[in-house]
Amino acid sequence: MSAPNRATLWGRILVDELAAGGLEAVCLAPGSRSTPLTVAFAEHPDIEVYSHLDERSAAFFALGRARRTGEPTALVCTSGTAAANFHPAVIEADQARVPMLVLTADRPPELRDSGANQTVDQVELYGDAVRWHADLPLPEANERTARSLRTTAARALLETTVSEPGPVHLNCPFRKPLDPIETTGSEAVPDEFGETLAGTGRGGPFVETAAGRHASEPAADELALDTLRTALETADRPLLVAGPADPVTPSAGELDPADVVAVADAVGAPVLADPLSTVRFGSHVESSPSETRTIYGGYDGYIDSLIAPDMNSDSDPDSEPDPEPDVVVRFGASPTSKRLRHALRDADARQFLLDPVGAWREATFTATDLLAASPGSVFESLAASLGESTTTNPWRARFDAAERTHWDLRDDACTTNSLESEPFEGAVLASVFEAAPDPATIFVSNSMPVRDADRFARPQPTDLTVLANRGASGIDGITSSALGAGSATDDPLVLVTGDLAFYHDSNGLLALERCGVDATIVLLDNDGGGIFHELPIEAVDPPFTSQFKTPHGLAFDALEELYDLEFERVEPAAFEGAYRRSLASDGTQVLSVSFGADASHRRRAELDERVHTAVAGTDDSGP
Amino acid sequence: MSAPNRATLWGRILVDELAAGGLEAVCLAPGSRSTPLTVAFAEHPDIEVYSHLDERSAAFFALGRARRTGEPTALVCTSGTAAANFHPAVIEADQARVPMLVLTADRPPELRDSGANQTVDQVELYGDAVRWHADLPLPEANERTARSLRTTAARALLETTVSEPGPVHLNCPFRKPLDPIETTGSEAVPDEFGETLAGTGRGGPFVETAAGRHASEPAADELALDTLRTALETADRPLLVAGPADPVTPSAGELDPADVVAVADAVGAPVLADPLSTVRFGSHVESSPSETRTIYGGYDGYIDSLIAPDMNSDSDPDSEPDPEPDVVVRFGASPTSKRLRHALRDADARQFLLDPVGAWREATFTATDLLAASPGSVFESLAASLGESTTTNPWRARFDAAERTHWDLRDDACTTNSLESEPFEGAVLASVFEAAPDPATIFVSNSMPVRDADRFARPQPTDLTVLANRGASGIDGITSSALGAGSATDDPLVLVTGDLAFYHDSNGLLALERCGVDATIVLLDNDGGGIFHELPIEAVDPPFTSQFKTPHGLAFDALEELYDLEFERVEPAAFEGAYRRSLASDGTQVLSVSFGADASHRRRAELDERVHTAVAGTDDSGP
Repeated sequence: MSAPNRATLWGRILVDELAAGGLEAVCLAPGSRSTPLTVAFAEHPDIEVYSHLDERSAAFFALGRARRTGEPTALVCTSGTAAANFHPAVIEADQARVPMLVLTADRPPELRDSGANQTVDQVELYGDAVRWHADLPLPEANERTARSLRTTAARALLETTVSEPGPVHLNCPFRKPLDPIETTGSEAVPDEFGETLAGTGRGGPFVETAAGRHASEPAADELALDTLRTALETADRPLLVAGPADPVTPSAGELDPADVVAVADAVGAPVLADPLSTVRFGSHVESSPSETRTIYGGYDGYIDSLIAPDMNSDSDPDSEPDPEPDVVVRFGASPTSKRLRHALRDADARQFLLDPVGAWREATFTATDLLAASPGSVFESLAASLGESTTTNPWRARFDAAERTHWDLRDDACTTNSLESEPFEGAVLASVFEAAPDPATIFVSNSMPVRDADRFARPQPTDLTVLANRGASGIDGITSSALGAGSATDDPLVLVTGDLAFYHDSNGLLALERCGVDATIVLLDNDGGGIFHELPIEAVDPPFTSQFKTPHGLAFDALEELYDLEFERVEPAAFEGAYRRSLASDGTQVLSVSFGADASHRRRAELDERVHTAVAGTDDSGP
Repeated sequence: MSAPNRATLWGRILVDELAAGGLEAVCLAPGSRSTPLTVAFAEHPDIEVYSHLDERSAAFFALGRARRTGEPTALVCTSGTAAANFHPAVIEADQARVPMLVLTADRPPELRDSGANQTVDQVELYGDAVRWHADLPLPEANERTARSLRTTAARALLETTVSEPGPVHLNCPFRKPLDPIETTGSEAVPDEFGETLAGTGRGGPFVETAAGRHASEPAADELALDTLRTALETADRPLLVAGPADPVTPSAGELDPADVVAVADAVGAPVLADPLSTVRFGSHVESSPSETRTIYGGYDGYIDSLIAPDMNSDSDPDSEPDPEPDVVVRFGASPTSKRLRHALRDADARQFLLDPVGAWREATFTATDLLAASPGSVFESLAASLGESTTTNPWRARFDAAERTHWDLRDDACTTNSLESEPFEGAVLASVFEAAPDPATIFVSNSMPVRDADRFARPQPTDLTVLANRGASGIDGITSSALGAGSATDDPLVLVTGDLAFYHDSNGLLALERCGVDATIVLLDNDGGGIFHELPIEAVDPPFTSQFKTPHGLAFDALEELYDLEFERVEPAAFEGAYRRSLASDGTQVLSVSFGADASHRRRAELDERVHTAVAGTDDSGP
């Protein structure tokens, strides 16, 4: 580990140890103070380097990549406000449990608060949003500090996943010279500082962080499992709810959806599967459910009609089963569907929450039992110990009828003439999923796309990895997050985004060329904040149009000349064809579909009304 | 102050008090949780509203506006990562002493850390970068909380300027309903909560913050002034150094450049005036200095030749005066010129630092005397008590000769054929200033533009307000900061920016139309990070080109279709004509001048060498 000066040596040791610990990718933004890190990453043979020019986009790209892989991605920037540009993605990584290693270069400590150029207080810059933070000492060339640096690097990597996965921040001060050039004087590296002292040549990490990198996921103890098993077995109306999934990390573990299906079938429970769970799509889903199904995706359209606690007041209490679940098992993050969250809040049920790190992610505060165990291990145990499938039961049959109604009416809305006369965004979401390749990675923006995916993307037996930034649910960094996810997989990549999110992170499109990612980008352009049409503020104008709807009239076509993409305006009725063509071709296509946000809102409400009416109807004719 | 619900009431009281306290402008980004604030700002007749879609750009726009006016600009965003997007501008506001009032909407406290949607920990989100932070209680409708809210609003406004001007953060949690709609139940406002209780109708602020809004600037006491005066009067080689100026706020005060000139002439001191000081340009500057001048701007080209402490070693000690200053008076922030900072560091001089809040902004740590007083009051006192101008002295004459040489050679470099064959960016900077309207506001980006302005913009007697984000010196938010500054003045607005900064904040261009600002944008496009050619890393490729220079090939022409601007590619030789045409026309023109960064770097070095050789030559022939 010879080096022409201390800063270069320090960068090399740090990066060498991170690579030995398994770090595979880094996002770099250019800067001078970060030169020792940049040089070390760029010259390392085992680490993939992604170069970005906007630190905000860089951070979301790193987030997306780590979201897709479950492995930490590193991030490097220079000193000053550059580091603050990472903050939004760091918060999202915190809330969405995405491992990330943030390395901020800094000026030497004596320059802090001195008026020196590009020097800000970077210590604890991200507050409580990081799992661990260290302010590294200045580079030195002696054995103890080299060991300390390697240990810190190993620990930082470990901390991104050892318990609750998330971001870790290392602040790295450097003195000049920063460049890999020979120097004399105090910043020189003495000849006697050889390879051994730096700890290389060991053929592996300096510190084997076996407990972290190979951690076993937390499992529930037998007593807790028995309680859960008994509750499910004795429940009359059990319900499984799969919320948005955490990234697959050693500590969070991986869930086998087949185990969920086995458990659900054994106890006769419907599985309400968020599109961001790993349960809504996959080979475990029935391709054409005949009698009754296990995986349900239409609940956002009907759940409040089906299990509303006051439903019985208008009907004969003897004619149908009690509409409320009595045992609910929830895993993953809080569901995307507000109606589902509210229905669960209002249900008089015992509600189990499974969470690998024991953190409550249930903001209606109606959980009754918390199991600090990975959903994967719990369902594996339950599947092995529960009996065979039960026969069709009236409880699940009610969901089945509602589900069938929901998808029939959705299909109707997506194909009738009325759609063509007043198209709505939900039809595009339906096509995106049904015509998706197998496998595919689909990233959906916050605001309306993720809600429309929730309501209009039918469970299907294809291998879809569906991702969103659902930790803090911002509309910032969406494009970069999607491209970061795409960089980590050979899957075709689809991004579904609205126009505000697309504008917000238009800088992220630079990664198409710089990072070599291809995508099909479905742009639902309703010229502003369509989601505000769903809120009461719609009726108060001003300020509705100027401050909420905020139409901008941006002609995104122009991005074709700026970035490595083809831009195509597509009529709603022609969307599916254009989508299939894009998926079959190379490069990146932006398929822009224009909508009136108010029209889409009316169509959603209209379909909603039809589903509700029909579900109330089928309810009486149920088994 | 009647309101249909508590949240609406709360927003109205807060905004009413801010307006009564003198707040004039707010930047709003759309969101749901912030509805009570947005509605109240939008309906208030006395507050200018600027609507933005990207919170990062919004914050820099607010920063630029406050930078130009010295008055706090408010900022509003919804909950979640939106607030983190403000962080870079908040840091710049902290470091550059720009008053700013950040209002972040939040979910109710019981939802924190609960897994609720779009809910992050916003308390103390900006760490130590804010002057004051308050986490407001939830809206209530009773007299005490209404008074408390008004008091908090008044205090928040005061804290932005009462001592060191800077950002203040109010975190504002709200419960639904957020919209201005009638409600019943706990969120209703009782009828008896009338106008009086809310404290309106008083014809002014609820709390008169006289000590803050009308604060007198800190003045030095007589003893300290005497010390400074005596030092200057008895100095053989006094030097005044004007660094980047703080915004003009009640506490920072305003400096009259004529006082600086009077003091400098009285004691025979050259004034080295940073382009970001208020001293380099203005009616106090000699339009055509004949014998000797007072304001010097070329020091970055020659200072190390002129006052280097080892200069005498090679020459006859009797042939010329000692080249070092013996008394230096510095005011404003740390100078842009690194050579000047290093020359001051190496000088064996008594160095006075004037700072209105007593903060050291002198990172070479060679100041000997700190006066916690506003430069304006100090120079006013000195000007009144010092004698008439001294005659030309050899010390100032040496600067005068060097200055003349510097500008002669710059002019030569800007007009000879060699310039046309290998144009350099400095020539454009020279034109930008010399052909600028009077008055004008000129915003220069960090990285090379501000350095080139420092070296190539000659002092001139026109009223130029020259601004930059020199607090943390980032290249983020440059366009928005410039447009925010432009929004506050009728001056023609000029922005000089590089391609990386222009890309970084391309979203900021949306403000041209949405906020009704016109500008002449001079884009120095050298396709990547030209500044890295100035550093040793240039010689190490890889990774120089891929990770530092980072050429991107962006065809910025396309922005013409996206934003409200005309894009024109201009040859260096044709720049001045295009610039004058743009200044004489309406709307916004981007004048893009392409350069090879390495060529510009070579030209700078070549000119540098010529100046140094010539200054060493004139030195011997000095008076």
